[in-house]
Amino acid sequence: MTVSKSAILKTAGGPERAPRPGRKERAEGVAEAGELQLGELSELLGYSLKRAQLKVFEDFLRCVSTLQLTPAQFSVLLLLDKNPGRNQTEIANTLGILRPNFVTMLDGLESRDLCARMRSTNDRRSHILVLTDKGRAVLARAKKLVATKHEARLNELLGPVNRAALLEMLATIAREF
Amino acid sequence: MTVSKSAILKTAGGPERAPRPGRKERAEGVAEAGELQLGELSELLGYSLKRAQLKVFEDFLRCVSTLQLTPAQFSVLLLLDKNPGRNQTEIANTLGILRPNFVTMLDGLESRDLCARMRSTNDRRSHILVLTDKGRAVLARAKKLVATKHEARLNELLGPVNRAALLEMLATIAREF
Repeated sequence: MTVSKSAILKTAGGPERAPRPGRKERAEGVAEAGELQLGELSELLGYSLKRAQLKVFEDFLRCVSTLQLTPAQFSVLLLLDKNPGRNQTEIANTLGILRPNFVTMLDGLESRDLCARMRSTNDRRSHILVLTDKGRAVLARAKKLVATKHEARLNELLGPVNRAALLEMLATIAREF
Repeated sequence: MTVSKSAILKTAGGPERAPRPGRKERAEGVAEAGELQLGELSELLGYSLKRAQLKVFEDFLRCVSTLQLTPAQFSVLLLLDKNPGRNQTEIANTLGILRPNFVTMLDGLESRDLCARMRSTNDRRSHILVLTDKGRAVLARAKKLVATKHEARLNELLGPVNRAALLEMLATIAREF
């Protein structure tokens, strides 16, 4: 069975809405000289993924601004909470973060007392990562903000069925492409 | 009308396939100690967008490796081709690239004789961007590689209907979120 594009988007009330230029373009006056033609660009999945991801990350930062957490830092805290006692390499690899960037990020989290590095008892060369009590508390507040502000708005924009379909397709790409 | 997740994904033959760990995790031996639990992370749209985008960009780089073009450079060439005579600010704003990064990128493209900056006759402080003949030739080859290798594989993975639905949802997020 296949479904038409309009069927998939009906729940989000999408097709009726006329496309409008992004906030940034309008604010910076590009419209004055006429919008640029995106041409094939709007058909490129990589470009569309990047634009959507930037928008979602911007909103994430706004929603948790009181806690000063980036999306990547939030991912690390979530993963540490779910997988206590794992080492740096495992966490970095799972998140696809390069080692030097990950070490810098951990330095930041540790200096704010959100997580701690401890020597592994099995392998003295390896560092085990754990959340501190403060890390757990900040994570709990962040999860609440993300759920009630950020994800709730995305849900409203796309509709729960489309949101689930989107997540599934993104997972397929991440896993199999 | 709403459609179920399984209906949307049927065309890509997705649900029957068992999830498998990413190449990176397996290659680096994380699996030995057991896969990490992603928990709520796999339900976060921002995280899923980022992972899918990284995968798509990696594949893009592989597909056009003979031409040494990044996705962002390819976007600039496409946009210049479609909108000759626009200035730096317009191109950078449309692509959402920060000015210092954009200037560095232009330096690179110009040093390879793919585009040129010319003083605007209307506004002497402004630079008009144009593709060179070499830039047009490289763009034509890149477009062919992207279409036949990169986008064709994505089409195969998702199916054309899902691919179109995905693009539509990403555009909705970029435009309205």
